Amino acid sequence: MAPLTLDADRLMPADPATRDIARALYAGVRGLRIVSPHGHTDPAWFATDSAWTDPTELLLAPDHYLYRMLYSQGVPLDRLGVAGRSGPSGADSREAWRLFASHYYLFRGTPSRLWLDHVFADLFGFEVALEAATADLYFDRIAEALARPDFRPRALFERFNIELLATTEGAHEDLVHHCAIRRSGWKGRVVTTYRPDAVIDPEHEDFSSALVRFGELSGEDVHEWSCYLAAHRKRREDFRRAGATATDHGHPTPRTADLGSREKESLFRRIVTGGWSPDDAEQFRAQMLTEMALMSLDDGMVMQIHPGACRNHNLKLFQRYGRDKGADIPVATEYVRNLKPLLDLVGNEPALTIILFTLDESAYARELAPLAGHYPCLKLGPAWWFHDSPEGMRRFREMTTETAGFYNTVGFNDDTRAFLSIPARHDVARRVDCAFLAGLVAEGRLNDWEAAELAHELSYALAKRAYRLDENRAEAA
Amino acid sequence: MAPLTLDADRLMPADPATRDIARALYAGVRGLRIVSPHGHTDPAWFATDSAWTDPTELLLAPDHYLYRMLYSQGVPLDRLGVAGRSGPSGADSREAWRLFASHYYLFRGTPSRLWLDHVFADLFGFEVALEAATADLYFDRIAEALARPDFRPRALFERFNIELLATTEGAHEDLVHHCAIRRSGWKGRVVTTYRPDAVIDPEHEDFSSALVRFGELSGEDVHEWSCYLAAHRKRREDFRRAGATATDHGHPTPRTADLGSREKESLFRRIVTGGWSPDDAEQFRAQMLTEMALMSLDDGMVMQIHPGACRNHNLKLFQRYGRDKGADIPVATEYVRNLKPLLDLVGNEPALTIILFTLDESAYARELAPLAGHYPCLKLGPAWWFHDSPEGMRRFREMTTETAGFYNTVGFNDDTRAFLSIPARHDVARRVDCAFLAGLVAEGRLNDWEAAELAHELSYALAKRAYRLDENRAEAA
Amino acid sequence: MAPLTLDADRLMPADPATRDIARALYAGVRGLRIVSPHGHTDPAWFATDSAWTDPTELLLAPDHYLYRMLYSQGVPLDRLGVAGRSGPSGADSREAWRLFASHYYLFRGTPSRLWLDHVFADLFGFEVALEAATADLYFDRIAEALARPDFRPRALFERFNIELLATTEGAHEDLVHHCAIRRSGWKGRVVTTYRPDAVIDPEHEDFSSALVRFGELSGEDVHEWSCYLAAHRKRREDFRRAGATATDHGHPTPRTADLGSREKESLFRRIVTGGWSPDDAEQFRAQMLTEMALMSLDDGMVMQIHPGACRNHNLKLFQRYGRDKGADIPVATEYVRNLKPLLDLVGNEPALTIILFTLDESAYARELAPLAGHYPCLKLGPAWWFHDSPEGMRRFREMTTETAGFYNTVGFNDDTRAFLSIPARHDVARRVDCAFLAGLVAEGRLNDWEAAELAHELSYALAKRAYRLDENRAEAA
Repeated sequence: MAPLTLDADRLMPADPATRDIARALYAGVRGLRIVSPHGHTDPAWFATDSAWTDPTELLLAPDHYLYRMLYSQGVPLDRLGVAGRSGPSGADSREAWRLFASHYYLFRGTPSRLWLDHVFADLFGFEVALEAATADLYFDRIAEALARPDFRPRALFERFNIELLATTEGAHEDLVHHCAIRRSGWKGRVVTTYRPDAVIDPEHEDFSSALVRFGELSGEDVHEWSCYLAAHRKRREDFRRAGATATDHGHPTPRTADLGSREKESLFRRIVTGGWSPDDAEQFRAQMLTEMALMSLDDGMVMQIHPGACRNHNLKLFQRYGRDKGADIPVATEYVRNLKPLLDLVGNEPALTIILFTLDESAYARELAPLAGHYPCLKLGPAWWFHDSPEGMRRFREMTTETAGFYNTVGFNDDTRAFLSIPARHDVARRVDCAFLAGLVAEGRLNDWEAAELAHELSYALAKRAYRLDENRAEAA
Repeated sequence: MAPLTLDADRLMPADPATRDIARALYAGVRGLRIVSPHGHTDPAWFATDSAWTDPTELLLAPDHYLYRMLYSQGVPLDRLGVAGRSGPSGADSREAWRLFASHYYLFRGTPSRLWLDHVFADLFGFEVALEAATADLYFDRIAEALARPDFRPRALFERFNIELLATTEGAHEDLVHHCAIRRSGWKGRVVTTYRPDAVIDPEHEDFSSALVRFGELSGEDVHEWSCYLAAHRKRREDFRRAGATATDHGHPTPRTADLGSREKESLFRRIVTGGWSPDDAEQFRAQMLTEMALMSLDDGMVMQIHPGACRNHNLKLFQRYGRDKGADIPVATEYVRNLKPLLDLVGNEPALTIILFTLDESAYARELAPLAGHYPCLKLGPAWWFHDSPEGMRRFREMTTETAGFYNTVGFNDDTRAFLSIPARHDVARRVDCAFLAGLVAEGRLNDWEAAELAHELSYALAKRAYRLDENRAEAA
Repeated sequence: MAPLTLDADRLMPADPATRDIARALYAGVRGLRIVSPHGHTDPAWFATDSAWTDPTELLLAPDHYLYRMLYSQGVPLDRLGVAGRSGPSGADSREAWRLFASHYYLFRGTPSRLWLDHVFADLFGFEVALEAATADLYFDRIAEALARPDFRPRALFERFNIELLATTEGAHEDLVHHCAIRRSGWKGRVVTTYRPDAVIDPEHEDFSSALVRFGELSGEDVHEWSCYLAAHRKRREDFRRAGATATDHGHPTPRTADLGSREKESLFRRIVTGGWSPDDAEQFRAQMLTEMALMSLDDGMVMQIHPGACRNHNLKLFQRYGRDKGADIPVATEYVRNLKPLLDLVGNEPALTIILFTLDESAYARELAPLAGHYPCLKLGPAWWFHDSPEGMRRFREMTTETAGFYNTVGFNDDTRAFLSIPARHDVARRVDCAFLAGLVAEGRLNDWEAAELAHELSYALAKRAYRLDENRAEAA
C-alpha cells in the first residue's frame, strides 16, 4: 500500500529562494478564517445538523468532477451511486466506493486529487493512499467518523474555521432552512444567494413550474411584466433578510439588452405565453440581466454573472440522469459587445458591483481585465469551475493582474457542493496565490511587505469587501 | 566554426532539484521502443529498402517546416529544391543545401532546430554546427552516409528502435507497398491508416479522380449512396488487413451531422453530380464523420479528427507548387456544437475511440479537456503540427491535464514525413513530458513513483492502448 | 515611509543559474541606444524644447493606463486633471497628484508600476515610494526638476540615449513641428509616421473635417477616387521627407479587400457623400489597407496594422471626455481570412513589409506566427498595449518563437505618449527578452553566443532593419 502524505510545501514554487518567500507569505494567511461568498452546499445540513452516514453518498455521488472522469473512462454512472431521473441508483455504496478507489489513479494531476487527499489525510487521518486495496479501509473509517458528533455539519463548519458560507437558492425556492438556522441560535453564519435563472430562462426545463412557485412565494401575478419585476424585488428582499448580499446569474451568454418599455412588455408576453423563439429567450435573459443590475443599484446586492456553459451537452445522459451530471461544456464567450447595453446604462456607477466569471480563458487578458480595469462597476471573479485548479488560478493571475491589478478581483470562491473539501479548496487557492506573489517578489516586481498585504487581501479581505459581507451583517441580523 | 554539441540535459527544467527529478524520469523512458501510430512516411521506403542518395531531397525539399521559414525571409522555394506543379525544381542539390545552411540561424528557438541538430549530431556524427562555412562538409558526409547499407530505411528503422510505424494512405490508393513489406518477411511493423479525405471532401482538388479510383479499388458503384458507404466498408477492411487500426480525417472544421436518410441521399446526389454549394460540401463532410464513427463502432477502428487548417492559403504558391507547401494556416475551431450531432448518436459508446486534435490552443482548456474528461468515446491527441514543440507540448499538458487527466490523452504522435527525425521527435516529447511531470513532483502534486508510471504511459503505453495496437496484431498477421 | 529601490535584478529569472545567464545577456544590451520606431510623443516638445512644468499634466493626465485603473476604482476622471470635451479639468494639479499617490497601491503587479518607479528612482532620484504621505514631496521635487534645463525635452532625449524616435501624425495634419526640428539644426532624430485613419475610416468622428484638411494639404480633389489616392501618394511623400519610413493603420478589424475598379469607385462615392452603411465603412477600410500595401510596394514604406480595439466602449465617458480615455477594449480578431485578399495580391513580395499587431493573444500561435513564418511580406509586431508587460511579452515570445522564429519579429515598440517612461519601457523589454533567452540557454535549446546575438537583435538591430531606418536616412536628410 502506498503511503499518503501531504507535502507541507505542496504548490510552493520549486526554486528555493522563491519557495522561501512563498512559505513566509503562506504562513501569514493559512490560518485566516474562511470566507466563502459563493457555493452550493445544502443549507439543510446546517439547519438540521444531522449526521451524514454514507461515504459514497457524501463524497462521490454528488461530485460531478469525480464521476465525469470515471465516466470518461467507461464507468457507468449508476454503478457510482449517481441517481437518475427515475430514482436513486441501485448501486451498493461500498461497491461504488470500491469502483472509485480502483480508478483513483485517473485523478493524477487534477485538482480533485489535491482536494481529496487533503480531506483524506487531514480530516480522516488516512496514512495510506486510496486504491483498490484500501477501498474498504477508507469506506469503513469514513463511515465511522461520520457517525461521530464532531463530524456533524455544524461541528465541521466550526472546525473548518468558516466565517461565512453562502449557499445558492432559486427565486422560486423558499428559505426555510436559512430561517431555521437563524432561529436555532447557532452562531455559524450561513447566508443565501439570489439565483433567479429558473424564472428568467424560458429554456430552463423547470421554467413554467418555477414561475408558478415564484408567483406564490411573492404573492404577485408574475405573468404580468410589472408584477413580475415586483416579484423579483420582493424576493430579493426576502433573500436579503436571509443574509444574502449577492445575486447570481448562470446564463448561456453574457448578453445584455436595454429595450424600450413596449418592447419589453411584448417580449415578456411571448415568454410567459410560451410563444417564444430561441432568439426571444436570449433577448429576455439579456434584458433581465439589465433589470437585475438596476435592482442591484437600488438594493445594493452584488451581481454575479456566470456565463458560457453549454448545459446538458450529453443528450442521452440528460434524458436518463437530468442536469448537473458533468456534461456541461464551456464555449467561447464574448463580453465586450454583449455587456455594452448594460454598461451604457449603469457601467459608470461606483455603487454597483458586477462580478464577471468566465469559462473561456482567452477572454481574461483580451476582454475581462481591460473591462474590469476601466469600468467602476465591474470586478473579476476568480478562476471558475474547470479552471479552479493550480494551473487555472495561475493563468488567471498571469493574464489579469497586469491590466486589472489585484484590486479589481474579489478573492476566492470555492463554488462547491462538496462541503468537506472547502478547507482544501481555500488552502489550494491561498498556496497558489502566495506562489504567484512570491514569483513577483523574487523577480523584483513587488516588495515583500506588499506581497504580504496582498496575500491577506486575496485570501480574506477582498472577498469580504467585494461581496459587502460586513454591510449586510446588521441588516440581516 | 561553432561546435555542435547536444546538451545531455536539454529541455530539462533549470531548477536543480526539479532537474534531478526530470533526469531520473527521463532515464526510465529514453530507451523505450518507439511507437509511432500516426505519421506520413513513405511505405515504399520500407518496401524497396532502396538507399536515399541526396541530402537536399531527403532532408530539405520535403520538409515544409524548413522551407516555409526560409520562404518567409525571402528565399524562393525553387532554389531550395521544392518541386512545382510543372516538374521538379531545377535547383542544384548542393546549392540548395548551401542556401539552407546559410539561413540555418533562422531556426533558433524552433523545434526544427532541435530535431535537426539531434539528427546531425546523433545520426551523422557532426561536431560542428551547420552554417555557410560547413555546408559542403555536411552535404558530403550526409551523402556518403546515405550510400552505406546501415543507412538504408530498414536498417535505420531497426537502429531507431521502432516497434511500430503507421503511415497514411488515401481511400483511393492501393496498399501495394504495405503488401510488399508483409510479403518480404521483414519483421519491421509498418502499418497503414485509412484517410478518406479525398473521396469525402468535394472541395479537395482530386475529388473526382479519387472517387473514380475509389470505385475501381472497391468494386462498388461509388456514385450511389449505399454503394459509396459499402465501398468505405470494403476499403476499411483492406486497410485493416494491411495492419491499420485507425482512420484519419483532416477536415476544415470538426462539424458533424446526423441527417435523415432521404436528406443524406439527396445531399450525396448533389455531391457526386457536382451540383453542390460550399454549404453542401461542409454538410457532407459533417455527415461523413458520423458515418465513419458508425463504421468504427462496427470494425473497431480508432478515429482521428484533425480539423482547423485553412489549406493552401497562399493562392499563387498553390497555383505554382500545389498543396502541402507550408501555406496551411490554422483558424479558430469550435468543437462543442460541431461535435454534438455525432456525440448525441454515439458519444456514450465506450467501445468507440475518437481522438481529437486541434490547431487552436484556446480550445484545450475550454472545450477539448472538458469534452474528453466526460465522453467515453473521446480522447485528446497530442499537441499537433505548429504546436508539436517544447512550449506547445508544455501548454498542452498545462491546459488539459487538470480537467481531462493524463489517461484521456494518447501519448505522442510524430506525425512526420521526415523519417530521420523520428527518434529526435520522440526524444523531445519524452523530455518535455518528464519535465512537466517533474514539476508536479517538485511542487508536491504527484508522488515520484506515480510520475515514473506516467512517464512510461506517456512515452509508450498510452499510444499502444489508445490506437489498439496490440488488438490488431493477430488480425493483421 | 516605504523605501523606493529598484532591484538591479528585476525581471531576471529567479533560478540562480538562469539568472546568471540573463544578467550576462542584459549586461550586453542595457546600454544600447534606444530605437523607438512607433510611438505617440508630441513633436512640438522637440520643436520648441519648452520646459514641462506640471507633474500632473506631464505624468498623470495624459496617461490612460493610469487613470483607467483609478477610474475603475471609483475615482472620477475630472479630479485627476483629465480634460473633457467642454474644456480642461478644473482639478488642482497638486490635489490630483495626491489622489493618484493615495491610490498608487492599485498598480501593484502592473507594468505602469514598473515604469513609474523606474522614472521616479532613476530620473528624479526618489528614495521613498509614492504614497499619500509622500505625494507633496514627489509633486514638489518633480516640479523643481522640470524647471531645470537638463529636464527639457531635447536634453532628456539625449540623456535617454535615443537614436531615433518616431511620432505619429494624421494624413490630414501638417508636419510643422517636424520641419521645425529639422530646421533647428538639432541632431536628435525625430521622424513621423503616416497614419491616415481619420481620412480612411468614415466612422471616425473627425472624418469629414479631416477629409477637407487632407484635400487642402495635398492640393487634390479628395472627393474623387483617383485624386483621393493621389492625395495619399503626395502626403506619403511629404511624410517621407519628414523622415517617415512607415505607415500605421488602426482599424477595428484586419479585414482587407481587392475590389474591381468600378466597385471601388462606387463604394468611394457612397463614402464621401455620406450614404454609406456600416458594411460599406468596413469594406472601404478593407480596400484601403490593400491600396496602402500597393503604395508601400512603390514607395517602400513599412506598413503597420493595429487592429482589434473596440474604441470608445464607454458611451457616457466618450460623450463627456472624447476618445482615448482608457475605454478602448480589445475584441477577438481574425487574421487568416481577413488578410487573404491583400495577401493574394502582394503577399509574396519580399520587398513589402507589413507588421501585424494584435490585442488577441489567442491569435499568436494559431494565426500570426504561422502567417509570419510563411509570407515574405509579413512580420510580427511586439506585444502591444495591454500586453506590453512582462507577462505579455513572455507570452508573445513563448507563443510565436517556435513557429515564426525571432527573425520574423521586429524588436520593441514603446508605443507611448509618456516620453519620460521610454527608457523604462525599453529596459523592461530588454530584461524580459534576456530572461526568455536565458531560459532557452539554461534548457540547452540555444547556445550562449547565439543568445547574445539575439539579445542584440531584439533590443536594437531588428527594429532598425524592419523599419528600414537606415534606408531613409539619406532620403530624409
